[in-house]
Amino acid sequence: VGLFTKSIKTMDDLFLHVLQDVYYAEKQIARALPGLIEKTTSRQLAAALKSLLDAGETAASRLEQAFDLVSEKPKGTSCPAIDGILKEARGIAGDIGDKQVLDAALLAALQAVDHYRIARYGTLVAWARELRRTAVGRLLSANLAANKAADRDLSAVAGRKADRKAAAR
Amino acid sequence: VGLFTKSIKTMDDLFLHVLQDVYYAEKQIARALPGLIEKTTSRQLAAALKSLLDAGETAASRLEQAFDLVSEKPKGTSCPAIDGILKEARGIAGDIGDKQVLDAALLAALQAVDHYRIARYGTLVAWARELRRTAVGRLLSANLAANKAADRDLSAVAGRKADRKAAAR
Repeated sequence: VGLFTKSIKTMDDLFLHVLQDVYYAEKQIARALPGLIEKTTSRQLAAALKSLLDAGETAASRLEQAFDLVSEKPKGTSCPAIDGILKEARGIAGDIGDKQVLDAALLAALQAVDHYRIARYGTLVAWARELRRTAVGRLLSANLAANKAADRDLSAVAGRKADRKAAAR
Repeated sequence: VGLFTKSIKTMDDLFLHVLQDVYYAEKQIARALPGLIEKTTSRQLAAALKSLLDAGETAASRLEQAFDLVSEKPKGTSCPAIDGILKEARGIAGDIGDKQVLDAALLAALQAVDHYRIARYGTLVAWARELRRTAVGRLLSANLAANKAADRDLSAVAGRKADRKAAAR
């Protein structure tokens, strides 16, 4: 949620504001992911990142439909939360030499990205219900479900890596 | 995860780094919550925030035990992610006049805070398993479970509010 919220007076305003917040987040994530994909040498992790990138495109297009349904132009609003999360992800990606340690750090950063989206879409789904915006709610529920699935995929990649390394000790 | 990660060479280094990251996050959250509790006029939300504050203290003390188990002094490391999330929470809290809209925004901000912790503790639990640090893993699992429970509580508060408002329309 951005900082310039003086104009938020109603739940409709707040809903639109957070819709813009998560739209901005999707765009920033889409810009950051290719640089992170380049860093990893794990094919499994690269594939997971690539599918996150594709899922993000679908999510952004669903958000554009949601804007349309509330008769607004798709627009982002600055969001320090996702900026901070991606700043950390880029910092980590640039600073770790060891490939396996880097992959673990990338995975962790992506899980934080994903949980941010889960929190935001979860909130928007509840608000859409409150505002009786059923069609918009359906689009946001689809984004929520996609992010929960992505989080499970990332956890599975992380879990397999952890098991392999624990077994190798 | 902070930005000064040049010294991260092994999984043990990365584990310690993220432990310091989430310790910093707990401390910052504990500093931010009282100001947010003041803003709300909902007793239900104030109670949820107060129990988050208590849970945070317990979580911080478990982290201190975890530092002890890995023979390190409890120390935070700068974390732009939680800084961004809390900056948004404070911005929203200061900028919305309507009480019900403010409460909805506060709830949303807290769910984002909580999901950040869920992501971090989830990561640390997996790494503790990989590093065969069973006792540390148990402490972190307890923090993970507490945050998942807190998220369910916040979702329940948000859901009840949403239902009430949808019914009132």
